[in-house]
Amino acid sequence: MKKFEEKTVTTDLKYTGRIITLQVDDVLLPNGKQGKREIVKHPGAVAVIAVTDDKKIILVEQYRKALERSIIEIPAGKIEPNEAPELTAMRELEEETGYTCNDLRYIQSFATSPGFADEIIHLYLAENIVKMENPADLDEDEFVELLHVSLEDMEQMVISQKIFDAKTAFAYIWLKDYLK
Amino acid sequence: MKKFEEKTVTTDLKYTGRIITLQVDDVLLPNGKQGKREIVKHPGAVAVIAVTDDKKIILVEQYRKALERSIIEIPAGKIEPNEAPELTAMRELEEETGYTCNDLRYIQSFATSPGFADEIIHLYLAENIVKMENPADLDEDEFVELLHVSLEDMEQMVISQKIFDAKTAFAYIWLKDYLK
Repeated sequence: MKKFEEKTVTTDLKYTGRIITLQVDDVLLPNGKQGKREIVKHPGAVAVIAVTDDKKIILVEQYRKALERSIIEIPAGKIEPNEAPELTAMRELEEETGYTCNDLRYIQSFATSPGFADEIIHLYLAENIVKMENPADLDEDEFVELLHVSLEDMEQMVISQKIFDAKTAFAYIWLKDYLK
Repeated sequence: MKKFEEKTVTTDLKYTGRIITLQVDDVLLPNGKQGKREIVKHPGAVAVIAVTDDKKIILVEQYRKALERSIIEIPAGKIEPNEAPELTAMRELEEETGYTCNDLRYIQSFATSPGFADEIIHLYLAENIVKMENPADLDEDEFVELLHVSLEDMEQMVISQKIFDAKTAFAYIWLKDYLK
């Protein structure tokens, strides 16, 4: 998995933030020349496809400042330092939806933007979900609205682009196969 | 699509690069408090699911410095200034694979990392593809290896995580339905 490897010559850290950092690497290209790579470092995230016993999918609508609009997504969130992804999945499910689950299954992982970022999302399926009496709160800068939708509703949301992110688009076509 | 809108109080540009810029916005949250959003601006991209007449899918292996490994992806690339996404699709297909196509169909668009970036990928299906005699060259810092794979090969690549990015994972399960 090192084909066409680009060895790092120098790394120049340009910005360190609360969530992401940005660095520019000078790299040695496979042809011996040098190139520059702008790289955003991100702690990684988990996303949860949560399905109720009557086959409704739990989604959250939230404002995404980067896009300057609200979109509808599967529950998701950043991995905290030293947190196992399974625990992130359970925590985000609880914080964002007020549900917990008795069956959590790993589906797969993927990079979201390999051209400029190292963010990896780990995707889980949550079944046998149960509403909690006193779920943990959202982060203080998070505001979400909960939706319970059928697969047909989800299809309409893809068509109307209310579902407009990669992980949720993936979840929709994954569920089309899983729930049929 | 403005639910829970976060109005911009100030924007602080932290880094301007060749491909991306990074800014930190102070925003007014729905509860009246202020928050900070770290935002990466990206020109947007196009990705192409290219299928040969004998139902092979054309993939490219390339090194992704952000991930420090090579991964296998559907052909994709950044939208140039004022370039229509359909033209980006045709250009990237030609540059990365040496093919052109007679049928190009828009599938859908999605944000790749709405939590911290505005990158949007427009996804196309290319059919009736034809090898070109003198295709345009890759960018001088791009090195890719071409693969022609069956849907079954693609599944193994997902399992082995050689396919490890969101758009290509999406392409695989979209093709599972389309090619059956």
